[in-house]
Amino acid sequence: MKTRHLIDLDSLSLSEIGDILHMAEAIAKKPSYYSDSCHGMLMATAFYEPSTRTQMSFQAAMLRLGGKVIGFDSPDGTSVSKGESLKDTVRVLSGYADIITIRHPLEGAAKAASMYSAAPVINAGDGGHLHPTQTLTDIFTLLREKGTLENLTIGLCGDLKHGRTVHSLIKAISRYKGNRFVLISTPELALPAYLKAVITENGLEYEEKDSLADALSMIDVLYMTRIQRERFAGHEDYEKQKGIFILDTEKLYNAKYGLKILHPLPRVDEIEDEVDDDPRAVYFIQAEYGMYARMALILHMLDGETKHIDPRPEGDGERVCSNPKCVTGAETYLPKLFRRKGGKFICEYCDKMK
Amino acid sequence: MKTRHLIDLDSLSLSEIGDILHMAEAIAKKPSYYSDSCHGMLMATAFYEPSTRTQMSFQAAMLRLGGKVIGFDSPDGTSVSKGESLKDTVRVLSGYADIITIRHPLEGAAKAASMYSAAPVINAGDGGHLHPTQTLTDIFTLLREKGTLENLTIGLCGDLKHGRTVHSLIKAISRYKGNRFVLISTPELALPAYLKAVITENGLEYEEKDSLADALSMIDVLYMTRIQRERFAGHEDYEKQKGIFILDTEKLYNAKYGLKILHPLPRVDEIEDEVDDDPRAVYFIQAEYGMYARMALILHMLDGETKHIDPRPEGDGERVCSNPKCVTGAETYLPKLFRRKGGKFICEYCDKMK
Amino acid sequence: MKTRHLIDLDSLSLSEIGDILHMAEAIAKKPSYYSDSCHGMLMATAFYEPSTRTQMSFQAAMLRLGGKVIGFDSPDGTSVSKGESLKDTVRVLSGYADIITIRHPLEGAAKAASMYSAAPVINAGDGGHLHPTQTLTDIFTLLREKGTLENLTIGLCGDLKHGRTVHSLIKAISRYKGNRFVLISTPELALPAYLKAVITENGLEYEEKDSLADALSMIDVLYMTRIQRERFAGHEDYEKQKGIFILDTEKLYNAKYGLKILHPLPRVDEIEDEVDDDPRAVYFIQAEYGMYARMALILHMLDGETKHIDPRPEGDGERVCSNPKCVTGAETYLPKLFRRKGGKFICEYCDKMK
Repeated sequence: MKTRHLIDLDSLSLSEIGDILHMAEAIAKKPSYYSDSCHGMLMATAFYEPSTRTQMSFQAAMLRLGGKVIGFDSPDGTSVSKGESLKDTVRVLSGYADIITIRHPLEGAAKAASMYSAAPVINAGDGGHLHPTQTLTDIFTLLREKGTLENLTIGLCGDLKHGRTVHSLIKAISRYKGNRFVLISTPELALPAYLKAVITENGLEYEEKDSLADALSMIDVLYMTRIQRERFAGHEDYEKQKGIFILDTEKLYNAKYGLKILHPLPRVDEIEDEVDDDPRAVYFIQAEYGMYARMALILHMLDGETKHIDPRPEGDGERVCSNPKCVTGAETYLPKLFRRKGGKFICEYCDKMK
Repeated sequence: MKTRHLIDLDSLSLSEIGDILHMAEAIAKKPSYYSDSCHGMLMATAFYEPSTRTQMSFQAAMLRLGGKVIGFDSPDGTSVSKGESLKDTVRVLSGYADIITIRHPLEGAAKAASMYSAAPVINAGDGGHLHPTQTLTDIFTLLREKGTLENLTIGLCGDLKHGRTVHSLIKAISRYKGNRFVLISTPELALPAYLKAVITENGLEYEEKDSLADALSMIDVLYMTRIQRERFAGHEDYEKQKGIFILDTEKLYNAKYGLKILHPLPRVDEIEDEVDDDPRAVYFIQAEYGMYARMALILHMLDGETKHIDPRPEGDGERVCSNPKCVTGAETYLPKLFRRKGGKFICEYCDKMK
Repeated sequence: MKTRHLIDLDSLSLSEIGDILHMAEAIAKKPSYYSDSCHGMLMATAFYEPSTRTQMSFQAAMLRLGGKVIGFDSPDGTSVSKGESLKDTVRVLSGYADIITIRHPLEGAAKAASMYSAAPVINAGDGGHLHPTQTLTDIFTLLREKGTLENLTIGLCGDLKHGRTVHSLIKAISRYKGNRFVLISTPELALPAYLKAVITENGLEYEEKDSLADALSMIDVLYMTRIQRERFAGHEDYEKQKGIFILDTEKLYNAKYGLKILHPLPRVDEIEDEVDDDPRAVYFIQAEYGMYARMALILHMLDGETKHIDPRPEGDGERVCSNPKCVTGAETYLPKLFRRKGGKFICEYCDKMK
């Protein structure tokens, strides 16, 4: 059964992800073949916080498929500012449009929206929670640039503790065979234990490194992210350590010939400009691949879909989620939904423990 | 003769409104048949104040007809902020576009714009004055959901004194035969006398009720609107009375099986969320009907039109409008136009007495 | 060889400008013939400062060619606000889009962008430096309205010292034969000496006038611009002189029958509203011509183009541009480029002397 909405990439089967990636490859080869595929279709981009890059990527994807786009880029001036609930806004938009992409500062907002939308909903980022099309972009880039999603040694560098894109990528890649992770960070910004568990539960291995230079010779892929200045213990630590996690051409001397360097962008100073001219740097083409991946996703979601709202599950009468950033706090009509895991209750919206 | 601009729904003949409604029905049945009807055409949305919902509805309408859209959603960053007159902005826009929708905080601004536009102008709201496409949406919803615009008993609930949508709807519905109105409000927020006169002058009847529950058994249609908290006499009155005008499932027990509940949206708390699942609630599909109504209107306005600016009437040398919200105050070059009614002078822009 | 990017109109040969103008004429005659010319193509409008009129003109142009548009209208909410360099933003955008229009508050920003863009870049205004599509609009208007770009006596009125559009127009028109300029301004706001030199070096003549009324009988074309109040020496001077440079119907009594009055718009009070009805006023149709000129330019730039980034020249190791508004100050990675002129170094970005 096809997934109606894309809230979390983990909810797609590997076979479904494979379908999307194959379609993305076909599009990347000959985009013009698809320039009327969504003729007469309309996408709504409901961006409850500005994120121009992500919004433009979705717009470009829909427009390059021959579809049209409406939407907003902040709640100012919308019915939201007049007190309208997320649910009502989504129901109205899903009457106008054939597909909705939503960006929201609260965790679980995309899932909440999907429960009231007659049109398929794509999560374009819900707070610090999920951003599945970034991950889809990342694995499509791996596939394009390495030819496979298996048996890769993948270095991840930067703030591995807080980085949402890193966490999602690890979860996605751990579903494929034979991959190894090299985790490059300070001890304070190391990958959380539950994500290390995801790796080992999938029968994969990881290694931790506190120097980018040391790791570079071992890896097939480097996924760079930024360590924000304020994440370092103090100013002294920052000045001492920052260079260790900055990629420059000197560090690249030790790297493999076939290395591919990815970055979710925007980059600030964690990759020196001089690296851009190295053929191993693929972070700009990665952004373009993101457009093709989103085109494939849109085609996948619209395929054979008829508009309807799914029946909503009954809520839990007793429990409420205690995460202050969970959408259920602001949108109080939402049924309270939890799943049990090891005797604990996990909120179905934000995936945090109650 | 076809009306060139849509400023006020009252200026359209019933036959012309009928044409638009029939076209809207055809579109609602098979929208895809019309997906290239405006191929090569361009709409400009000139929104001098933000109203994302209305703007998206017009954009969706034009895009679903295969047309394109340009525009702005506030005067910031436009030539207006550099001191350009409404007239100049409109003349430039009407050189770019085939049709213009205008939203403006001043009353009469759409009429003013239409006098300088080579392209047809649609009023998308001019201050608290007129918003004809909302009314067109409302009557199209009535027609779709009740099958007729005649012999209906229509309840209107909320702030009937200030509500622009309610006033316009009463004027529009009073032109059809056999309708009855049930006016549901507090005495302080009752319908103004001149609108009661409109009803009776058309040979129709109305009844006033101060309780929504009492009215529900009598009506075929309920048009819900909000009473803003600050409209009640005092805080005590608000707490005492607010529940009387809030629709919930309990009150609906007395309602007819065939009742249809409309609301211009956004809704805040005047309809409980539980009502949404009642099949008599049609306010979300009403928003979708609004898109079809606007599609039909656009086709109607573009049909056979060649671009030109109509000759402008001479202004009144003596009189100026005293309404501080009238567009003639800010745009001083406008010819001062009045019509006489019962020995009084009515401003042709804002329809207020001089 | 075709110019890949349009940064400065002067870098186009007269033959290339002629091609664009002929195409613009063909489009203006029958726009609908071109309504699918850019089918499947995407334009990105990268506006680092709001300029709704210019942005709408480009959007209308691309949409009327059957293309699509993405973009932003200010850096808020973009990756720029997260510290992304101009270079990175442009590289990502040029992966999404087939052509980029850029507006930026810094001088030389469009040239800088073009060095990192795989897609052709059009300069839509870089600070007070260049705005080539305005000039293209102006000369296309001259050609349409006068039938020629030669042997014209062209009056330029307003602030000739600071006016960017006036300077560019003089440079462009000086490349054609037999034209004469009448420069109408206060002595304080006279045309800079280097531009007078441009005129004479091209074998053309000019005359200076301090009264619009006096000049009107001599000229075939009047290019009106505004003198900002703060440009006058003092309040008294302003009150005394402002009327001298305001065009009204009275002054027009002395003008030729075939005079054409142009204005880049928006106009504030330098042309009285009463002039609008004079058939010699062409400033509103000029805005429409601007759309056709931009359509022709887009077709010209996309013709036969394959996406690639040109090799970048080596920078000057010693010199830096001293213009505080030059883009090289903010975007420090840019190679420092200078050309020599009379023993001096001119910055290749902002065209100011080092």
